Amino acid sequence: MGWAMSIPALAITRRTRSTPFSSRIEKFGVEAYTIYNHMLLPTRFRGVEEDYFHLRESVQIWDVSCQRQVEIVGPDAARLAQMLTVRDLRKLGIGRCALAPVCDEDGFLLNDPVAIRVAEDRFWFSISDLDILLWAQGIALGMKLDVKIFEPNIWPLAVQGPRAEDVIVEVFGEAARATKFFRFDTLTFGNHPLLVARSGWSAQGGFEIYVDDAEIGVQLYDALDAAGQKYGIRPGCPNLIERIEAGLMTYGTDITRNDTPLEGGMAQYVGLDADIDAIGLNAIRARAKKGIDRAIVGITIDGDKVPANREPWPVIAHGKQIGSVTSAVWSPRLETNVSLGQVAIDFTTVGTQMSVETPDGVRSAQVSPVPFPGASTH
Amino acid sequence: MGWAMSIPALAITRRTRSTPFSSRIEKFGVEAYTIYNHMLLPTRFRGVEEDYFHLRESVQIWDVSCQRQVEIVGPDAARLAQMLTVRDLRKLGIGRCALAPVCDEDGFLLNDPVAIRVAEDRFWFSISDLDILLWAQGIALGMKLDVKIFEPNIWPLAVQGPRAEDVIVEVFGEAARATKFFRFDTLTFGNHPLLVARSGWSAQGGFEIYVDDAEIGVQLYDALDAAGQKYGIRPGCPNLIERIEAGLMTYGTDITRNDTPLEGGMAQYVGLDADIDAIGLNAIRARAKKGIDRAIVGITIDGDKVPANREPWPVIAHGKQIGSVTSAVWSPRLETNVSLGQVAIDFTTVGTQMSVETPDGVRSAQVSPVPFPGASTH
Repeated sequence: MGWAMSIPALAITRRTRSTPFSSRIEKFGVEAYTIYNHMLLPTRFRGVEEDYFHLRESVQIWDVSCQRQVEIVGPDAARLAQMLTVRDLRKLGIGRCALAPVCDEDGFLLNDPVAIRVAEDRFWFSISDLDILLWAQGIALGMKLDVKIFEPNIWPLAVQGPRAEDVIVEVFGEAARATKFFRFDTLTFGNHPLLVARSGWSAQGGFEIYVDDAEIGVQLYDALDAAGQKYGIRPGCPNLIERIEAGLMTYGTDITRNDTPLEGGMAQYVGLDADIDAIGLNAIRARAKKGIDRAIVGITIDGDKVPANREPWPVIAHGKQIGSVTSAVWSPRLETNVSLGQVAIDFTTVGTQMSVETPDGVRSAQVSPVPFPGASTH
Repeated sequence: MGWAMSIPALAITRRTRSTPFSSRIEKFGVEAYTIYNHMLLPTRFRGVEEDYFHLRESVQIWDVSCQRQVEIVGPDAARLAQMLTVRDLRKLGIGRCALAPVCDEDGFLLNDPVAIRVAEDRFWFSISDLDILLWAQGIALGMKLDVKIFEPNIWPLAVQGPRAEDVIVEVFGEAARATKFFRFDTLTFGNHPLLVARSGWSAQGGFEIYVDDAEIGVQLYDALDAAGQKYGIRPGCPNLIERIEAGLMTYGTDITRNDTPLEGGMAQYVGLDADIDAIGLNAIRARAKKGIDRAIVGITIDGDKVPANREPWPVIAHGKQIGSVTSAVWSPRLETNVSLGQVAIDFTTVGTQMSVETPDGVRSAQVSPVPFPGASTH
């Protein structure tokens, strides 16, 4: 629905939490924010298209403080962490990260966090936009588990793009090169130890730094900014074009509590055969036996630029609705509209023709490979 | 901190849910939104000052769809509802509403919802901005309670202002006049029954309508709009000036999880002597015995208009910090800055002098009565 006459501003208060880096990115000129986990998350700096090309060609610092951690520590931490996710965490070693779907007892998705084992009895869930803190605390209270659960003061900074490693190495030293994908190491900035993971919400490669001190964080921000000048570093943020092309789904938009991990494209992260006690796992097993009837696909939408999609757009084939598009945007590189959506399982083959009801009218469309062609530059 | 060079837009997606009324208010020209319970909430239409005078003099329709309900129904509903709040709900009759603080086991506030008993075994918690749904579901799961808990499809519309009753009566009939403060009745619009409460988040009087059908809701919106034309009705929203003057606190801004209901000015809603099983109540009892060391007060801040306050501003007396201001704005009626904040208990007397460190510099300030003088017009 594209009815906005003008673009409403975001009213920023204490409740919509600022971050240690807000002053930096606002001086640079952030164009748009969203709210994510009750915190500011930039969505645009110089237009989504210019930001996109810059991310693919250079390097960006992202203020992703809103990737809040839910920390679980104590004697029952491993038991509760496993209950919270349908992924088998038994082999998650210290220093490892794992995409760990969190489900309700009916198997429906509450979150698609990254679980991080910080120590034997200490876990972080790096959550998407829902108060998983309260879910975990409610369960622990109801079951009288011996754990502490809280949101630590951690504000992740990401460095993303093809020159990210160069920048990280200049600030943290050569040791950073050894950090493997989806693992973290403790690196030092000045004398301050920081967890640094090779991860991030783009297909361009990069790192995420778990800043645990606001003052150090601002110094780090400035050091990264200085080190990246020779590569044209700029503030950036998760980019709508880039993440759709990479097939990165947003919880709340592309996947919701109406989906289990099976429909949500996360079947490979479910311990279907694991002997574990995980909330929702039995429900997902039953669903897996029956087989799913819809799946997430990439869809290219013909015609010129589609408007912003605020609501799912119906996808039509053979005269009836067979799914919906949940995220869509014009790709200036592919010169077509790229989108993610859910369609009935019989319509998921690449090349399948369909039509999409956009607010601007019906468009022809077809299923695309995901990632979209050339999504990654490395 | 007032560092923004320009005012960032809000990026609106499926995740930041639109409401059945978004098309109406955006056509009218909403200036700013916030996100509240993962949903759009307007914060300004024609500037906060013009909106303020209009609310005090006329009547406004508010899209407060973001006042999401957590519905609890089933054999254990009354037991769980009581566990969720430290208010004694035993005498909450059907058709009654009660401000019902929700606390964690240490007595700290998770929410300041209105609890509504819709039927003997059916409760709504009309929540402020936190996923109490997950808190309630986690507890129910951990305790294996026999309840269903969900977010029903209800989008509240408020009609607020001195002419609100006239408009409501024109649309719902004379029966609406009999609805008492903080109670609801079932009134009909067309043939559609709707819960209508005499309530709302202003001191100007008015009603809240619990719209349970999006299509009917839009018809109702248009009917209210038509009925209110003779009074100059306009779209509106909770107004920063009006709510500070009325002493209406925002959870997440003026009160947080760092406060129990005692520091949060809600002692009268705590069943300190009630024989009930409520999460956090024992912790609050222990705290009440010791006595609290800070309280929420109104503060007038001298000088010209203060900037938007995004972070708490330190309040200083006798050379040391004794509290902070959490919400502040210029009141064009009182011709001073009005604010809410927390200060040490020795500094709560009306007239007490202090100073406030705003981003624009230190200002002299003094404790004001709350509500502020002339806050209400009825």
